[in-house]
Amino acid sequence: MAQQDSELSERLAADLIDVERRFASELQSDLACVNDLVNHIERYRGKMLRPTLVLVTAMACVSTDGFPVNDSHRIVATVTEMVHMATLVHDDILDEAEMRRRGQTINNLSGNEAAVMLGDYLISHAYHLCSSIPDSDVSRMIADATNTVCEGELLQLHNRKNFNLTEQTYYDIIRRKTASLCGICCKLAAYLSKAQPHTADALYSYGEKLGIAFQIVDDVLDLLGDEQTVGKSLGRDLEKSKLTLPLIHYLNTADEADRNVMLSLLDQQRQTDLPEQTRHEQVGIIAGRLRQFGSVDYARDKAASLVEQAKLVVTEHLPESPAASLLISMADAVLSREF
Amino acid sequence: MAQQDSELSERLAADLIDVERRFASELQSDLACVNDLVNHIERYRGKMLRPTLVLVTAMACVSTDGFPVNDSHRIVATVTEMVHMATLVHDDILDEAEMRRRGQTINNLSGNEAAVMLGDYLISHAYHLCSSIPDSDVSRMIADATNTVCEGELLQLHNRKNFNLTEQTYYDIIRRKTASLCGICCKLAAYLSKAQPHTADALYSYGEKLGIAFQIVDDVLDLLGDEQTVGKSLGRDLEKSKLTLPLIHYLNTADEADRNVMLSLLDQQRQTDLPEQTRHEQVGIIAGRLRQFGSVDYARDKAASLVEQAKLVVTEHLPESPAASLLISMADAVLSREF
Repeated sequence: MAQQDSELSERLAADLIDVERRFASELQSDLACVNDLVNHIERYRGKMLRPTLVLVTAMACVSTDGFPVNDSHRIVATVTEMVHMATLVHDDILDEAEMRRRGQTINNLSGNEAAVMLGDYLISHAYHLCSSIPDSDVSRMIADATNTVCEGELLQLHNRKNFNLTEQTYYDIIRRKTASLCGICCKLAAYLSKAQPHTADALYSYGEKLGIAFQIVDDVLDLLGDEQTVGKSLGRDLEKSKLTLPLIHYLNTADEADRNVMLSLLDQQRQTDLPEQTRHEQVGIIAGRLRQFGSVDYARDKAASLVEQAKLVVTEHLPESPAASLLISMADAVLSREF
Repeated sequence: MAQQDSELSERLAADLIDVERRFASELQSDLACVNDLVNHIERYRGKMLRPTLVLVTAMACVSTDGFPVNDSHRIVATVTEMVHMATLVHDDILDEAEMRRRGQTINNLSGNEAAVMLGDYLISHAYHLCSSIPDSDVSRMIADATNTVCEGELLQLHNRKNFNLTEQTYYDIIRRKTASLCGICCKLAAYLSKAQPHTADALYSYGEKLGIAFQIVDDVLDLLGDEQTVGKSLGRDLEKSKLTLPLIHYLNTADEADRNVMLSLLDQQRQTDLPEQTRHEQVGIIAGRLRQFGSVDYARDKAASLVEQAKLVVTEHLPESPAASLLISMADAVLSREF
């Protein structure tokens, strides 16, 4: 078993290197100014959650021909990372973020217009690469997911400054903007491994639950994280009046006096002329209240429960294997934020 | 012949209505906030140059089965309009300097954020619709064109404030950002009509030349047009230090004294605190100089020459037909700005 695990790790590492190579090769332009921008965002690369979901799911499904990961899987893995990178670049415009993975964001470095166009360049190349797979249903499924991602972003934008945001709408937002892409990573991997449709659907559900949990944790970190560790600007959600799970829980549960104090703190975060020092201090006060009231634990419990559900899907629908175990570990890793 | 012409017009009108229907149906969401935004941009709809190129080229190629325009043509026509609309939405996003100059509020800012996501929604749906065609080469060709469009936009951004921009780089920019989509409209229409590859390539060249001419005329109108007639704010290229053909000609040809006067006028247009009245007056002075020096005629002659080349492609590669004649009229219409 230990040997199988190490073989799996080696194969995965090799496939991820192949994904990086395809990523760089697809984005290569004959224009130096385009390559310069692309090189900059290569630094955004994180732990490649989405390509890893594609590749490990493929291994866990084991295709009938004995080569679990095929070229279409590697293409789809690259495409999902490109789509994700495009959403990061465009998200940074929405958030007016200055830092991303310890580097300057494109909008901060080269202006919003370059960031808009670079994001478009990434999306366009994602579809270009995807349509190199002859089966157009693959592109169709990816596009269906990106339609949903955009809807999630628009729904979130629409609900800025909505201090009555319900938990249900919050889940609807993050299910669309984050979880739909994770879901399709797993479903497409299964589809390309010729898994049964019900297995592919189950794996969509695994990816979706993992994605929702991931976003809940990400949102908690925006409130509580350490900028050095997380590597990006924090407190942005408050500044943009984006309500996330701990706050929704607090506003729905606290008594009127506490609720009013919190609303007044949130209102101050929206002030564009608030000194950075004051803003930071207030984020600390808000976080302290949320922690003390149990709203942070509430959000973390929700994420943990979704992770358990995701793991159950794997044990119920896939045979035991090192790759299936890795899917389970990946779900756990979302909570400890190793992704 | 007159009867054939009128039959052609009727068929074209019916197909364009079908394109509008497909456009609206593809963009329909279960979220009201998304539909509201989509309804807003439906107002941007112009004369549908790109879908018309697809449909008329299809008719001019006449497929072997006797039904010149098929469903794939209508899908591609809708896709090209959706891609074009996305570029309009993203083009309209101003850089931060301008936002400050116009003193935009947070509301206006959230407008820009919605514009980023709405453009993404349009692009995503364009690929979603396109991949409903089983032949994935169609999506591949569209994505190849949009890759090139983004490169053109990035090259243009990179050359802002470059007062030494050459004519060659200018053509490279507009060939990529505008003409590549027009070219692929015609090539794909021919491909879907099962035309010979050399005919499809020739029609790409027709669309490309028409597209370059279109953009030259569009750029001239930004300098000289009447805001009421053109229907959008003028002088924006100057404000953004985007050099277009008349200016490039002037700066390359005028003597040093005149060149320096022009450079100083251009420099003032960049000032973010220039009063709107002064800006307008100076655009008038710049336009007057370009006109007097012959730089406007130079640009118009270039456009006219490209239109002649585009027409020649049609007469050389397609049999005479009402649709082929319409392709020729469409090229002429670019000069009189009926598109």
